[in-house]
Amino acid sequence: MNSSDCYDAWCGVAHGCTRKLGMKICGFLQKNNSLEERSRIVSSFKERAAKNLLSCDNIDGDARFRRTETDFSNLFARDLLPAKNGEEPTMQFLLEFVEILTNYIRKTFDRSTKVLDFHHPHQLLEGMEGFNLELSDQPESLEQILVDCRDTLKYGVRTGHPRFFNQLSTGLDIVGLAGEWLTSTANTNMFTYEIAPVFVLMEQLTLKKMREIIGWPVGEGDGIFSPGGAISNMYSVMIARYKFFPEVKTKGMAAAPRLVLFTSEHSHYSIKKTSAALGFGTENLILLNTDERGRVIPADLEAKVIEAKQKGYVPMFVNATAGTTVYGAFDPINEIADICEKYNMWLHVDGAWGGGLLMSRKHRHKLNGVERANSVTWNPHKMMGVPLQCSAILVRERGLLQGCNSMCAGYLFQPDKQYDVTYDTGDKAIQCGRHVDIFKFWLMWKAKGTVGFEQHIDKCLDLSAYLYNKIKNREGFEMVFNGEPQHTNVCFWYIPLSLRGLSDGEERRERLHKVAPKIKAMMMESGTTMVGYQPQGDKVNFFRMVISNPAATRSDIDFLVEEIERLGHDL
Amino acid sequence: MNSSDCYDAWCGVAHGCTRKLGMKICGFLQKNNSLEERSRIVSSFKERAAKNLLSCDNIDGDARFRRTETDFSNLFARDLLPAKNGEEPTMQFLLEFVEILTNYIRKTFDRSTKVLDFHHPHQLLEGMEGFNLELSDQPESLEQILVDCRDTLKYGVRTGHPRFFNQLSTGLDIVGLAGEWLTSTANTNMFTYEIAPVFVLMEQLTLKKMREIIGWPVGEGDGIFSPGGAISNMYSVMIARYKFFPEVKTKGMAAAPRLVLFTSEHSHYSIKKTSAALGFGTENLILLNTDERGRVIPADLEAKVIEAKQKGYVPMFVNATAGTTVYGAFDPINEIADICEKYNMWLHVDGAWGGGLLMSRKHRHKLNGVERANSVTWNPHKMMGVPLQCSAILVRERGLLQGCNSMCAGYLFQPDKQYDVTYDTGDKAIQCGRHVDIFKFWLMWKAKGTVGFEQHIDKCLDLSAYLYNKIKNREGFEMVFNGEPQHTNVCFWYIPLSLRGLSDGEERRERLHKVAPKIKAMMMESGTTMVGYQPQGDKVNFFRMVISNPAATRSDIDFLVEEIERLGHDL
Repeated sequence: MNSSDCYDAWCGVAHGCTRKLGMKICGFLQKNNSLEERSRIVSSFKERAAKNLLSCDNIDGDARFRRTETDFSNLFARDLLPAKNGEEPTMQFLLEFVEILTNYIRKTFDRSTKVLDFHHPHQLLEGMEGFNLELSDQPESLEQILVDCRDTLKYGVRTGHPRFFNQLSTGLDIVGLAGEWLTSTANTNMFTYEIAPVFVLMEQLTLKKMREIIGWPVGEGDGIFSPGGAISNMYSVMIARYKFFPEVKTKGMAAAPRLVLFTSEHSHYSIKKTSAALGFGTENLILLNTDERGRVIPADLEAKVIEAKQKGYVPMFVNATAGTTVYGAFDPINEIADICEKYNMWLHVDGAWGGGLLMSRKHRHKLNGVERANSVTWNPHKMMGVPLQCSAILVRERGLLQGCNSMCAGYLFQPDKQYDVTYDTGDKAIQCGRHVDIFKFWLMWKAKGTVGFEQHIDKCLDLSAYLYNKIKNREGFEMVFNGEPQHTNVCFWYIPLSLRGLSDGEERRERLHKVAPKIKAMMMESGTTMVGYQPQGDKVNFFRMVISNPAATRSDIDFLVEEIERLGHDL
Repeated sequence: MNSSDCYDAWCGVAHGCTRKLGMKICGFLQKNNSLEERSRIVSSFKERAAKNLLSCDNIDGDARFRRTETDFSNLFARDLLPAKNGEEPTMQFLLEFVEILTNYIRKTFDRSTKVLDFHHPHQLLEGMEGFNLELSDQPESLEQILVDCRDTLKYGVRTGHPRFFNQLSTGLDIVGLAGEWLTSTANTNMFTYEIAPVFVLMEQLTLKKMREIIGWPVGEGDGIFSPGGAISNMYSVMIARYKFFPEVKTKGMAAAPRLVLFTSEHSHYSIKKTSAALGFGTENLILLNTDERGRVIPADLEAKVIEAKQKGYVPMFVNATAGTTVYGAFDPINEIADICEKYNMWLHVDGAWGGGLLMSRKHRHKLNGVERANSVTWNPHKMMGVPLQCSAILVRERGLLQGCNSMCAGYLFQPDKQYDVTYDTGDKAIQCGRHVDIFKFWLMWKAKGTVGFEQHIDKCLDLSAYLYNKIKNREGFEMVFNGEPQHTNVCFWYIPLSLRGLSDGEERRERLHKVAPKIKAMMMESGTTMVGYQPQGDKVNFFRMVISNPAATRSDIDFLVEEIERLGHDL
């Protein structure tokens, strides 16, 4: 049935009903038609408009469902609200737009849809089938805008697809998505209670709940949502420095002795970025050795602390990672906390990836000791499936965040407002304007309950155990480290037939190093699935499978394994 | 007409048509009904469901418009996609949700709607009419989720309302909003081309266009979108330090001499925050004197540079503000650039607020000399009306951003991918995951054209000139500084009748200081409009009116003035 037939059929049945709905259905069906067909449909609409304008108008006084012909080719942004008579085109435009989005959402969860339709940068820049990325001086019609939006989605990557495993953040949570839509509709700023009263309170309550889950007494402490784990980690180092050397705030690093930070060689690179940015210098970030599973060796930490002290440096800050990026390793927090207490160092737990496991009664033991941390990074946008961006920095001691960042700008934070201004958060942040990241998370928590997050996390860990058990002894697969992964990270090499007989050595290493990139490139070309790879230390490129996607099932895991075999077998 | 009547009327006319649409209309009308009434309506729906399930089902094979009864009280997040048979409830939920949003949008532009419905923190925390902010262990029904969303909007602030003038970011651009909805639906990350191919290219092209507009030859240079002006300003200081003292990256601030930064006493507090965060110390940020209009006095800069050098410090960085927060002042960039060149200092232009004026042929002269800057902060989410967050840091010299922030984390940025990995942006950023802030801006640019932004900016400046001319000689109003404002900031005191005869002195100052907060509090209680106030230097609290809202008209300006008079006259 083509779109035109659809409209006829619909008009027959829906005679006397709103045109909008007829258009909606046609809208859905025309998505894959050519521009030519589309324009034919629009003409056909116009013809019918004259005949069909008589009924339905008087159902109620509500202008929303007045039957108007919406020819977006003659409409421009300037015709939308706040333009005079802009309400009707605005509603029509948004409804049409939402249909593009809901169509995309449906397809995202449909396994027969590709994960991506890959093109090289130069191809997209040259303009795929008329998709022109260049900006121009003159406005484009809303029809073109709608086409641009369809194209943007078409050439993007479906991060919510059940077979997208490429990042730590995957999946498309419908309630979280709705929360983001509302957030952007409210379009406000976390700066003050004055302009974001509900969101500021939601943030406060949610942070308290997170601190309770961490295990700090009655959820005491402080915290803030920041634009990602790297910034949250940056906060932790800033606050630690302020705690031990508050004069650095006014006098700079010259006021402090040579300060040293410690983190695992497997930890996230944001700790290193922060050492550079905040003026410590990357050389003063000491990397700690790990065991074969990627966990910090506490004795190595203590040895390096002693060594630093002997050189006259001041060990100040230790980052323990709860869920490393590649191996998904959990550093032994309790043993690290003992050393931090002994040498009076700040203990930060980077739980950007692993923090979500705190929601699971079954898995939270992996973070045992987290309640001894001075600060914790926890990104709900990773393991908890919250849409990007959603990252929290949580601090055990109240007042430090404010003390560290406050500049008492009276022209921004008026102390003489009519409400309790302790709810204004702006002066705690290194940002001024701050995006509302809390609402989608709050809404998901309401909708799923704590138990819903727990179920999601347990399911993802079950799936990764399934994958691990499936491939650990499978021909052609070789695990990067032994034993069941602590998190959902499963790291493995795929060994093509041609390499299986080869003895370990430089040639095999060199050839194996090229296998994962080749398979990945083919995966992307065929668009069937996506999974990440990388080298680590002296280990050549291997696949790192991670599961945070709520849409993934065992069959998707099976598919991935078979796809790797299909693509890689004969390399 | 109550909701039940509405449904009857609808059912009469729309007999044989989709139930969904009937529900839609009723949904709109029931928003303000009590829970009791709502539950009655739901029951009434259920009764009718049995009778009405027969028609419309066979229009086409498309499941979207199958008439199903959507009783959200029995649906939960777990019933939505990716759940089995989750497609129908997902679509119904999203459509219902969108109607909440479109309803909100319509009201936002309706001047008979309040700007806000103010409540104190303790009132909201106690639970307004059943609006419970606390998170619980068990899931709530989707019906409750929809109610929560309505309540969230109800108790929030309508930042798009034509009479909301409280912040530099105001207004609700429909195309920008649609762009945000798409962005959250795509839910990806600017980290690599691999997972955000279209967005990465859009960012690249848009940054180039912005650099061209700044006036850098053929748009050469670099840049990145960051989570707000404060972070963009932070980038500028980091990059400047890297340019002059690259060894600080590895060795820390100890490797550099005592570095000094300069900025206006009227500049944004983020420069001060950055001085503290990056290890310079706020004492090494020298504040520059301004003239009575809030513009830096270049001679004061040169004197302070010389003084710092005499003390053996190294002047490194000067921030010139293009559009200060309170006065809207533009520092004289060319004269400052001369001094920067003479003393070999980095020139940063903080155009977070004023950068938008570059789009206007009439007003861009206020930034004359900006092309001589080494870096520029420019927030499209302020004067250009782009939804929050959208801020760019632009850098004239290519390679610095990468050099400064790159940590070459091979496990995150694989050099052996099949595409040109110079498009991967992650290692330039201080963030790792990075929200897609570009799309809404790109889409607005397409939809409005450069000329559309220009018209918006010219209109806002015209309106502020209108306000200035209206009140400059009006009884009861007193301007904070003389002459037409450079930006849309109009700063003034309102003098109640009781203060008008009073001679200048401490008593008058003290009483006047309390006037703006009182009027503001009454404004918020009555919900009619919102405008900011603050003290500045030795000046007691005054109103700072700013206009960036595309919905505002002269009648709204008139309204504001009369509202201030109404509320303040008898204080």
